[in-house]
Amino acid sequence: MSSSPTTPGTNQSWGGRFNEPTDAFVARFTASVNFDQRLAFHDIQGSVAHATMLARVGVLTDEERDTIIAGLDEIHGEIERGEFAWSVALEDVHMNIEARLTEKIGITGKKLHTGRSRNDQVATDIRLFMRDEIDLVAAELSRLRAGLIELADREADTIMPGFTHLQTAQPVTFGHHLLAWHEMLARDHERLLDCRRRVNVLPLGAAALAGTTYPIDRHVTAELLGFERPAENSLDAVSDRDFAIEFTSFASILLLHLSRMSEELVLWTSAQFDFIDLPDRFCTGSSIMPQKKNPDVPELVRGKTGRVYGHLMGLLTLMKSQPLAYNKDNQEDKEPLFDAVDTVKDCLKAFADMVPAIEAKADSMREAARRGFSTATDLADYLVRRGVAFRDAHEIVGLSVAFGLREKKDLSEMSLEELQQFSSVIDADVFDVLTLEGSVAARNHIGGTAPDQVRAAAQRARDALAALAGQPA
Amino acid sequence: MSSSPTTPGTNQSWGGRFNEPTDAFVARFTASVNFDQRLAFHDIQGSVAHATMLARVGVLTDEERDTIIAGLDEIHGEIERGEFAWSVALEDVHMNIEARLTEKIGITGKKLHTGRSRNDQVATDIRLFMRDEIDLVAAELSRLRAGLIELADREADTIMPGFTHLQTAQPVTFGHHLLAWHEMLARDHERLLDCRRRVNVLPLGAAALAGTTYPIDRHVTAELLGFERPAENSLDAVSDRDFAIEFTSFASILLLHLSRMSEELVLWTSAQFDFIDLPDRFCTGSSIMPQKKNPDVPELVRGKTGRVYGHLMGLLTLMKSQPLAYNKDNQEDKEPLFDAVDTVKDCLKAFADMVPAIEAKADSMREAARRGFSTATDLADYLVRRGVAFRDAHEIVGLSVAFGLREKKDLSEMSLEELQQFSSVIDADVFDVLTLEGSVAARNHIGGTAPDQVRAAAQRARDALAALAGQPA
Amino acid sequence: MSSSPTTPGTNQSWGGRFNEPTDAFVARFTASVNFDQRLAFHDIQGSVAHATMLARVGVLTDEERDTIIAGLDEIHGEIERGEFAWSVALEDVHMNIEARLTEKIGITGKKLHTGRSRNDQVATDIRLFMRDEIDLVAAELSRLRAGLIELADREADTIMPGFTHLQTAQPVTFGHHLLAWHEMLARDHERLLDCRRRVNVLPLGAAALAGTTYPIDRHVTAELLGFERPAENSLDAVSDRDFAIEFTSFASILLLHLSRMSEELVLWTSAQFDFIDLPDRFCTGSSIMPQKKNPDVPELVRGKTGRVYGHLMGLLTLMKSQPLAYNKDNQEDKEPLFDAVDTVKDCLKAFADMVPAIEAKADSMREAARRGFSTATDLADYLVRRGVAFRDAHEIVGLSVAFGLREKKDLSEMSLEELQQFSSVIDADVFDVLTLEGSVAARNHIGGTAPDQVRAAAQRARDALAALAGQPA
Amino acid sequence: MSSSPTTPGTNQSWGGRFNEPTDAFVARFTASVNFDQRLAFHDIQGSVAHATMLARVGVLTDEERDTIIAGLDEIHGEIERGEFAWSVALEDVHMNIEARLTEKIGITGKKLHTGRSRNDQVATDIRLFMRDEIDLVAAELSRLRAGLIELADREADTIMPGFTHLQTAQPVTFGHHLLAWHEMLARDHERLLDCRRRVNVLPLGAAALAGTTYPIDRHVTAELLGFERPAENSLDAVSDRDFAIEFTSFASILLLHLSRMSEELVLWTSAQFDFIDLPDRFCTGSSIMPQKKNPDVPELVRGKTGRVYGHLMGLLTLMKSQPLAYNKDNQEDKEPLFDAVDTVKDCLKAFADMVPAIEAKADSMREAARRGFSTATDLADYLVRRGVAFRDAHEIVGLSVAFGLREKKDLSEMSLEELQQFSSVIDADVFDVLTLEGSVAARNHIGGTAPDQVRAAAQRARDALAALAGQPA
Repeated sequence: MSSSPTTPGTNQSWGGRFNEPTDAFVARFTASVNFDQRLAFHDIQGSVAHATMLARVGVLTDEERDTIIAGLDEIHGEIERGEFAWSVALEDVHMNIEARLTEKIGITGKKLHTGRSRNDQVATDIRLFMRDEIDLVAAELSRLRAGLIELADREADTIMPGFTHLQTAQPVTFGHHLLAWHEMLARDHERLLDCRRRVNVLPLGAAALAGTTYPIDRHVTAELLGFERPAENSLDAVSDRDFAIEFTSFASILLLHLSRMSEELVLWTSAQFDFIDLPDRFCTGSSIMPQKKNPDVPELVRGKTGRVYGHLMGLLTLMKSQPLAYNKDNQEDKEPLFDAVDTVKDCLKAFADMVPAIEAKADSMREAARRGFSTATDLADYLVRRGVAFRDAHEIVGLSVAFGLREKKDLSEMSLEELQQFSSVIDADVFDVLTLEGSVAARNHIGGTAPDQVRAAAQRARDALAALAGQPA
Repeated sequence: MSSSPTTPGTNQSWGGRFNEPTDAFVARFTASVNFDQRLAFHDIQGSVAHATMLARVGVLTDEERDTIIAGLDEIHGEIERGEFAWSVALEDVHMNIEARLTEKIGITGKKLHTGRSRNDQVATDIRLFMRDEIDLVAAELSRLRAGLIELADREADTIMPGFTHLQTAQPVTFGHHLLAWHEMLARDHERLLDCRRRVNVLPLGAAALAGTTYPIDRHVTAELLGFERPAENSLDAVSDRDFAIEFTSFASILLLHLSRMSEELVLWTSAQFDFIDLPDRFCTGSSIMPQKKNPDVPELVRGKTGRVYGHLMGLLTLMKSQPLAYNKDNQEDKEPLFDAVDTVKDCLKAFADMVPAIEAKADSMREAARRGFSTATDLADYLVRRGVAFRDAHEIVGLSVAFGLREKKDLSEMSLEELQQFSSVIDADVFDVLTLEGSVAARNHIGGTAPDQVRAAAQRARDALAALAGQPA
Repeated sequence: MSSSPTTPGTNQSWGGRFNEPTDAFVARFTASVNFDQRLAFHDIQGSVAHATMLARVGVLTDEERDTIIAGLDEIHGEIERGEFAWSVALEDVHMNIEARLTEKIGITGKKLHTGRSRNDQVATDIRLFMRDEIDLVAAELSRLRAGLIELADREADTIMPGFTHLQTAQPVTFGHHLLAWHEMLARDHERLLDCRRRVNVLPLGAAALAGTTYPIDRHVTAELLGFERPAENSLDAVSDRDFAIEFTSFASILLLHLSRMSEELVLWTSAQFDFIDLPDRFCTGSSIMPQKKNPDVPELVRGKTGRVYGHLMGLLTLMKSQPLAYNKDNQEDKEPLFDAVDTVKDCLKAFADMVPAIEAKADSMREAARRGFSTATDLADYLVRRGVAFRDAHEIVGLSVAFGLREKKDLSEMSLEELQQFSSVIDADVFDVLTLEGSVAARNHIGGTAPDQVRAAAQRARDALAALAGQPA
Repeated sequence: MSSSPTTPGTNQSWGGRFNEPTDAFVARFTASVNFDQRLAFHDIQGSVAHATMLARVGVLTDEERDTIIAGLDEIHGEIERGEFAWSVALEDVHMNIEARLTEKIGITGKKLHTGRSRNDQVATDIRLFMRDEIDLVAAELSRLRAGLIELADREADTIMPGFTHLQTAQPVTFGHHLLAWHEMLARDHERLLDCRRRVNVLPLGAAALAGTTYPIDRHVTAELLGFERPAENSLDAVSDRDFAIEFTSFASILLLHLSRMSEELVLWTSAQFDFIDLPDRFCTGSSIMPQKKNPDVPELVRGKTGRVYGHLMGLLTLMKSQPLAYNKDNQEDKEPLFDAVDTVKDCLKAFADMVPAIEAKADSMREAARRGFSTATDLADYLVRRGVAFRDAHEIVGLSVAFGLREKKDLSEMSLEELQQFSSVIDADVFDVLTLEGSVAARNHIGGTAPDQVRAAAQRARDALAALAGQPA
């Protein structure tokens, strides 16, 4: 690996065997520096650890190590300040940095690459990068979960219609509905931490594919970089991209969840549902329709689901049928992974900001729950308690509903006489079970929609989230 | 819910509100019994636990419970013996079994559905089913891993060319290559057990979506069914299909790995590579080309990768943007999941049977490693040890390779004089580093290809696998 | 190829080179007869044409040809009557039929395979099958389009709110909305016919991969089977599965469209929208909630979108990176393709039956359009016509809307005085443009929502569909 | 639509109804100008046509039209010269350009938006963009096809082994193999032109969703922009993204084909196959392994298959279940589409450059074909001509092959006596059919591998490609 190609257009790091320079288009087509420069700081972090280890085992002198680390520090600064001149001719982030290092500190710079190869180097960089990004994602996820829990607690008594098939089913509390969202995210959080464990393994030392002849100590490098352990097999270490797929799979399920929440937010802000308000600052208008206030944020998040699913499919396709060990195909892992990371962080931030600002329109929700025969099951249960077989009770209520549809009356709007034409066991106390409050309060067991259960569930969720705070993420 | 529709074509379990029978095509189109009957035994298992719990909390008498359980036992036998008459008119596995139960034990059969709904029932059935299937998958996976470890141990000294870009890179041992496969599967195994943890949660008690008004005890049901805990939220419990996606995601990565192994098996059995033999019993021939012996098993497994990726994409698409809680869309979860389960089990069985029977053609592998300048890196390292800068060493070896290509000689086939024309520091001892044995033995650190490292890695793998045997799977 | 294996478990069609019988699990795992028997009639159709051609060029005698065709006819009958005994040991549909033929007519049966191989035979069978299925799909598509056109024509004057971002945007006519659905399907229809053209090409004669040494005449076979031309290249002919992917791609876009229509049908049947009724025969109820009437058909169709997307992704993955020519992987093409065909036909049938039965609730639609400030753009246009710059007009209307939101009044419900507080140019004639009829009638150009335009568009659609009737599909 | 927000952070184009400015993160999150500025020239092209039409129907004066067009011309120049200041606050390319126009020409600039909306504007822009890109793609595709045809013609007599299951099957000519590649691309070309037809339709005039009240003439605009016709339905016109999916579907199948070619190129350049050389300018080396020459271009192209598949899946997911008409989700269509376009163009360029430079290693190919019993089928056919039943001939050859495997002799290397131990009908003339030339020449029918057929096929391909030159692409 070298910084100064001597034949124009030939990369001299591998020139000896070659008779002609690389085609200019091919050089651009195969270069990765335009996107992998994003790994620069992690590349430096890995190099510092590698140099430290090499000195520890005697391959570098302490002085060489210090010179290298000082040089890398300077480069870190140059990149941070935007002063670093990236070169496509140098192919990738690794060669750009190494070339600059050698420019700065001379021949010692070239010793840094001892006992490693770009294959294990890039695998290490991505894992360092992913570990950091996972921690950022986990932080946003925690923030969103916390916001949801508090909102749910606040809305533990607010009644709305619960739907199945988007048809009014039974009354539920809005807090209960929000905690259903929370449960989805809690599983996502678990999956993220499971993924982190598998990310946190050190490839460095695998070299090109078979390990190296230098007396390296991979346990030292692993410890310096905070990895749990060195990867067990060099061929696997340079060709494994499972962690990228596993992260994107986590991201796909997370976006799936956000798409479900988004769908509901879009429905609920429609004139037809009118269940909630989103503050104006989360919405946009129309350039020609002056009345419009569009729920752009949930719509866009819903749309981004496809993007992340696509990256998952792209990565799965990429790796399919690749023989060991490293193939150039693998260079295609970075762009989808970077974009998945950014999309996840942006969508979580957007939701974590927006969710606490959701304004429930309790009257409107209540009115919707009151209509739609949402307490029909309660009436059936009432009849069962009065000795009617459930099968018959179901039929009786079905006929009452058919009547209500014709007369445009909900069950609670019918007179006792009207109800009694369907069953003589119905008494005046029937109206207690036809109330919304009665209906939700009666579902009083773990997981049920009763306000007390919602508050208890919110507390358990709060505790679980706090417990995670002690964890790595 | 009823077994005997009284209006022709109308399902009386929900007939009261309806004015006309279901369209015949619609009845067939929306029925699921043709595929969900596969859940029958788990449906019965769940019902037995539900009845037991209902008796425990006093909703059923002990006698009713016993009658129900006895009836379900009989039905279990009927299904096992192929005597059960499945009816599309009864829509799904749940109603088929309940209808038969009521036919057998009368009115008491109808009490079984107290405090539950098909929404939480089907979610419970699938989880019970998946838990069992995961255990079967884990068993096959363990068997394949064990076979790989033993083969790798046996072949720890067998030398083959290691490839990057499918170009000869450096010599590796065949055992080392096989352990790279093993590492992939070890990660799959971890992911499978992580998934199992999230499968093992009880939805029952969520009822239609909001919980139930009956005094159920979900902790009892969870314990009876071996679930770790009840699901926290009823709306989530009936609408969550994460576990199906997570399993299919596990399966996709596993098939990805099997596709990589398959690709290599196909390459290695080709006349061009000729690295291994597969016993005839794992191959098929051609009806018109008498010389053919085709590696059908790895080809077919490679092909099945698409199938499982497709199911993953199908399930992700299915769930995207669904508002809570249950929607009919969800019925589409079963067929892809069942097929993913079957595909995984078959492919693992095929590999677990075949892998131990792989016959390495050591001479052919060795010959390939000997050619292709596989020890070029070793020559460069030799020069570095003699004081040449790596950069110059690389160039010197590059020129030697160019010479070898022209003269059709590998490095080890060149005379000392020929080698010395490229560098005067080369001495007679160079031929030690140009041997294959010297090359692999020198990569002697954790993860490296040296035979001793391979044997140590095999032992660690064996231990890790044994440790898993204490686990649920 | 032979029907009677002489070594137990060894398929004698390729036994000479083999030393041991196929493993029993492998035989089952690699057999395709369980699903490819669906191609039986097309296999026979192809064989009849092949035999006819072979006789034409003198490879078979006329008598041999007649014997073969008579035997195949008998087998056709046996299959039709369910009397054919399929054998997994014979691997696939081709060998099952040929074995039976030889059983029936002796040695002549074996001559049928002259000059062909299973590789070109199966490719021919699938194309014959697909051509027939495409014609069936096209017929259902035409029926659905016709139903939509008539419904749109009937509802050309029915006013509903048009949405963007699911927020009320401007009034449109229901007929116009339905014709938007029709446009989607018209493009699908075009794509289907484009695909049919590429399906309709003859692979037979490619033999195993390189063509055959027999003096075959592929133009004759192509003509006999109604193919447009023989495939140009034998290697391509046996390995090409583009047409399967192209069909599945067509199917994916079609299902995408049906999922959009389904989403709207589900929304429209909700209590919140209440725009349409679906007859009871297309809906189902709930076993525990007596009031439920669920739009199962659109929900299920929406769910099936994932299934078809999954098949597309599966087939794309399957073919990725396969070297020429035939590989066993390709056997995996059939199940997803068959399922895509069935799903498309079922979903189209469900929609073609259901769409004409949609009952618009015109009053409810109208009421929704009246609210939501749907004529705000019309008011802005009115102001522009009175000389206000559009930019200022937009601001004025925006302020009126803000006022209306506070006062819970739509624009048409405000008094002239109220409106005039925002702009003095507003006059009594403003109420003309704030009417729904005025709004829709004013969008009177090709593609616009004015009732006259809808009727004209319906007529053009009717004509275009009729013109297609002359086409192959 | 306006350029100068008066409330800080509030976009005044829709501010009247809003009470607070857009959240800063939301503004960035929802803006599209960072990627849709790529549509700038097509946006201007569409605006020029729109202004011209508006003047034609009297909505603008000729002077206004000229002022607008002159202003747009200047902006075109500013963008071209990199002088245009893009603003995220102005959301998208449309508002950026319009704001700048108004800045330049004052109030007249605002009149440009009369009778259109961003919804139909962006749909028009993308279609104009796609039409141009399709023509560029078609040009590269033609160039690659032409290169393939000429190479195939040159290599019409070069013999290589044909493979099925990657096992040697029968000898084929290299030219024949290359024409199989060409056939794939010819189908891609057809699909591209089919897609172009459906792209070439004008959405403009659909306005926000329902058409406009201004007296526009969409036929005029369509003609000015070279569109075949106006879109039939305004709701469909603003919400349809079929063409993006259809293009990405075309691109996926194309990349599938390139991945198959790439796989073969990678195999063929391996030491094991050694069938071809790729010039050094299309390859790269290794920084640590001096002997390496890696086929990076085909590897990378193969890797990019996943990228394009991913975009297809992303777009399909994006559009699933969206209710009409425009939703913000749709903004997510551009990035995957742009990337698919770029990937396709780059991969085609790489291949079109590289394919003509492929150097066949005829001796090596021939040697491989000579081994592997590639003429076994020819021997069986020989026996059939001597009266042996094919079934028996197959068995005889199978036994000869088993003998050859043991003795390490190909069929053509056996003595007459050795061959005769398997069948007494074998005579000295058998060696004619065992020659490679005899084998390929005998497959002499359309689509067969005989050199004469290859040359004829190349000529037909050349003619077909030339015929396309008269077409739009």
